[in-house]
Amino acid sequence: MKFKLIVLSALAAAATFTAAAQQATPTPAIYSAKTLAELPLVRDAALKSDYAYERTRFMTNNIGPRLSGSAQAARAVEYVAEEMRELGLEVRLQELKVPHWVRGIETGELTEFPGMAKGTTQKIVLTALGGSVATPESGLTAELVVVTSYEQLERLGRKGIEGKIVLFNEKFDHRLSDSGEGLKAYGQAVRFRGGGPSAASRLGAVAVLVRSAGASQMRLPHTGGTRYADDVKKIPAASVTYEDADLIDDLVKQGTTKMRLVLTPKTYPDAVSHNVIADLKGSERPDEIVIVSGHLDSWDLGTGALDDATGVAAAMQVPYLLKQLGLQPKRTIRVIAYMNEENGLVGGTEYAKAEANNIANHIAAIEADLGASHPMGVLFAGKPEALPFFTPFLEVLREHGSGLIRTEGGVGADIGPLTQRGVPSFAPWFNTRTYFMYHHTAADTFDKVNPEELARVGSVMAVTAYALANMEQPLPR
Amino acid sequence: MKFKLIVLSALAAAATFTAAAQQATPTPAIYSAKTLAELPLVRDAALKSDYAYERTRFMTNNIGPRLSGSAQAARAVEYVAEEMRELGLEVRLQELKVPHWVRGIETGELTEFPGMAKGTTQKIVLTALGGSVATPESGLTAELVVVTSYEQLERLGRKGIEGKIVLFNEKFDHRLSDSGEGLKAYGQAVRFRGGGPSAASRLGAVAVLVRSAGASQMRLPHTGGTRYADDVKKIPAASVTYEDADLIDDLVKQGTTKMRLVLTPKTYPDAVSHNVIADLKGSERPDEIVIVSGHLDSWDLGTGALDDATGVAAAMQVPYLLKQLGLQPKRTIRVIAYMNEENGLVGGTEYAKAEANNIANHIAAIEADLGASHPMGVLFAGKPEALPFFTPFLEVLREHGSGLIRTEGGVGADIGPLTQRGVPSFAPWFNTRTYFMYHHTAADTFDKVNPEELARVGSVMAVTAYALANMEQPLPR
Repeated sequence: MKFKLIVLSALAAAATFTAAAQQATPTPAIYSAKTLAELPLVRDAALKSDYAYERTRFMTNNIGPRLSGSAQAARAVEYVAEEMRELGLEVRLQELKVPHWVRGIETGELTEFPGMAKGTTQKIVLTALGGSVATPESGLTAELVVVTSYEQLERLGRKGIEGKIVLFNEKFDHRLSDSGEGLKAYGQAVRFRGGGPSAASRLGAVAVLVRSAGASQMRLPHTGGTRYADDVKKIPAASVTYEDADLIDDLVKQGTTKMRLVLTPKTYPDAVSHNVIADLKGSERPDEIVIVSGHLDSWDLGTGALDDATGVAAAMQVPYLLKQLGLQPKRTIRVIAYMNEENGLVGGTEYAKAEANNIANHIAAIEADLGASHPMGVLFAGKPEALPFFTPFLEVLREHGSGLIRTEGGVGADIGPLTQRGVPSFAPWFNTRTYFMYHHTAADTFDKVNPEELARVGSVMAVTAYALANMEQPLPR
Repeated sequence: MKFKLIVLSALAAAATFTAAAQQATPTPAIYSAKTLAELPLVRDAALKSDYAYERTRFMTNNIGPRLSGSAQAARAVEYVAEEMRELGLEVRLQELKVPHWVRGIETGELTEFPGMAKGTTQKIVLTALGGSVATPESGLTAELVVVTSYEQLERLGRKGIEGKIVLFNEKFDHRLSDSGEGLKAYGQAVRFRGGGPSAASRLGAVAVLVRSAGASQMRLPHTGGTRYADDVKKIPAASVTYEDADLIDDLVKQGTTKMRLVLTPKTYPDAVSHNVIADLKGSERPDEIVIVSGHLDSWDLGTGALDDATGVAAAMQVPYLLKQLGLQPKRTIRVIAYMNEENGLVGGTEYAKAEANNIANHIAAIEADLGASHPMGVLFAGKPEALPFFTPFLEVLREHGSGLIRTEGGVGADIGPLTQRGVPSFAPWFNTRTYFMYHHTAADTFDKVNPEELARVGSVMAVTAYALANMEQPLPR
């Protein structure tokens, strides 16, 4: 998650609209006439296909949550490999050692607060942050203190924090998110999830709560990974719903408020898991690779439909469509179902390491990991000089409202290590307005996937991948 | 709850817009010039007041959920009585014996389904229906069967149902609800919550699930009361989220799907509780009564903010405002905080019984129990001949967009027994579009209350009550 945050803040910083690609004159020599004629066929096949939708169904409804190290994650690896073999692809599994953290009991209740009825408590809805250590089995009880910034935490100092449970009450910016900038809102809100526990522990806090980094308005907590600094005592950390954060804030303002917190997650030794790598070999330049990808692992509260079964399924659909149309790309299209995006990024990191001497052959990388609402086009991380290369395929996508392009510093966590090494990188671009309602909650389930919208995501992925695999010239990088 | 359902279906049946009241010529003799001049003052005081908002805060944040028989419900009785005494009202507590049901552990998981990863389960998010009996402590495991109607249940018969867990998968009509007819959508969806367990038990089912009767789209179950027929074996009953209902439906269609269900609620002997009855005595006709009311009990998942702390608080605010303005009504305004609306309706029933010989002195009854969004006006249950009496005060409310009136067969569960005995009955009228998102869920919490909207609810309640208490003529009934 640490890495993901860096990418996200790069996203926020580098966010600029680029009209150049739309306005530049197409360069006919970049694509053969045959390829240009095939792109609309690929798009139309994608728009008609339910391949990705049915694969999403299986990964979510029939397999379920797929947190790294779980039996479901292992089953998902098997499933994607089988499906890709069935399409005739060359499949290999890249072995990884991934974190293995398992959620336990998680309850919170206010045991003392102004005006309470004798013998009662107020329930606090919360969920452990991924990687959190446990409380004692019987829980811990301590006074609550609320802060909204690291500065405020420091001002309170050891005297104000020691022995307390600290709530980081940074509000998710709904207005920013509603305006389409969900990633920015998330980037702002998520700061305390990663760093809050360590900062509070340094001042002697006994546990940390963070207000959910997300847009749910239905008392549903958003989980996500936390990470302890090496030099601090690890203290239990959980995410509370915005409703419960508001409740705590209100009561703490009125007087002494205490909470009992029980979290019993367990961290096991790292588990063996895998990236699934499946190649549809290129006809002319088989050594050159265009990646289509998503991540196979998910958080454990929901079934990881939007995060990220749809991304994996849309990637799997690319070779399916090309086979269906009888098209073989000139370069190799490589489907990667990455493992462990959510709590370690081991899959993305290890893939880039393993291919360290082969980066130049990675012509492009596409990852879909921002949900599956209507795609407005593609996000691009790379040299601006490359933009004119995209005009022809963006025009094909534009007919269905998916022809915009926006440049970013990074576009996907798993392909981030490739982006950083200069591989031109792409992602379907959504406004993410609704994504952060469901993100990392129990409500990220199959029903949230709209089959028509997913078909459009598939069309963006397939058209982009096929075009890049068939370019007659290399991309500037 | 049984009674409530009758009222609701009456609502649906009798729903007609009535323009008569708006168009009729005001009858000056109904109100004194003084009263007519005071009504806008009452309205404006309500719009400026945060009295109801702060009382709602205390009942939800400081007291919490208030299910009948709980310590919190007892504390809420005390609180409302104290607050009313503080205003100088004559307060009495009407003793009641109320059901005392306490939620326990509640978990569901699919233990067998097509494609499952070995050794895994799929979690099912559910909550026990109020009044449900328990499963064995270790739970029960059985095959699932899905029906969408009682006809389908009957067609499957004992052969298809015996030994199974039946899911009643009636969908909540979001489109109807979004169009403002949330009550109709609720009335349709809720049929199986009350009657489903008995119907399935007759055919040998071992447990019942109902798809949540509500509009949450965030994997949050809606609870509510169920009621067993006298002639059936009581079987455990729970409400599942729409997401989990969809999941079960999908998997059952694919093949054998089994579920383990654990519900450990307990039913204790009936508990002593109270209606709070507080009178602001009338100056001219103290024996004649206009009721302003809401219900003090709530379901236990949330803190009963919209259902119905806001209703109680808006009623409490009526005497507060009149005292603030130095106005004494001609008739007595009686604040009632009813107990046990949610799972028995004991408070409303017993009040009407106790006043059986005094019904004629009950000039009108107002209850607010449909949330606290912007009020469009008032619902009215009574003789159409009474409508012209309302024109003057509706005009006062119309200036702030709350001047419409709509006639219904019944307008509130607690005052229903009075309505049935001919007491003209009123409720603030909302479109209920958002109400059924939060209704009976954990998300019915204080943050859902908008202070400005609640102030408007308060203005409708206070203006209506003061006008009715000061009429120079009796209402036709």
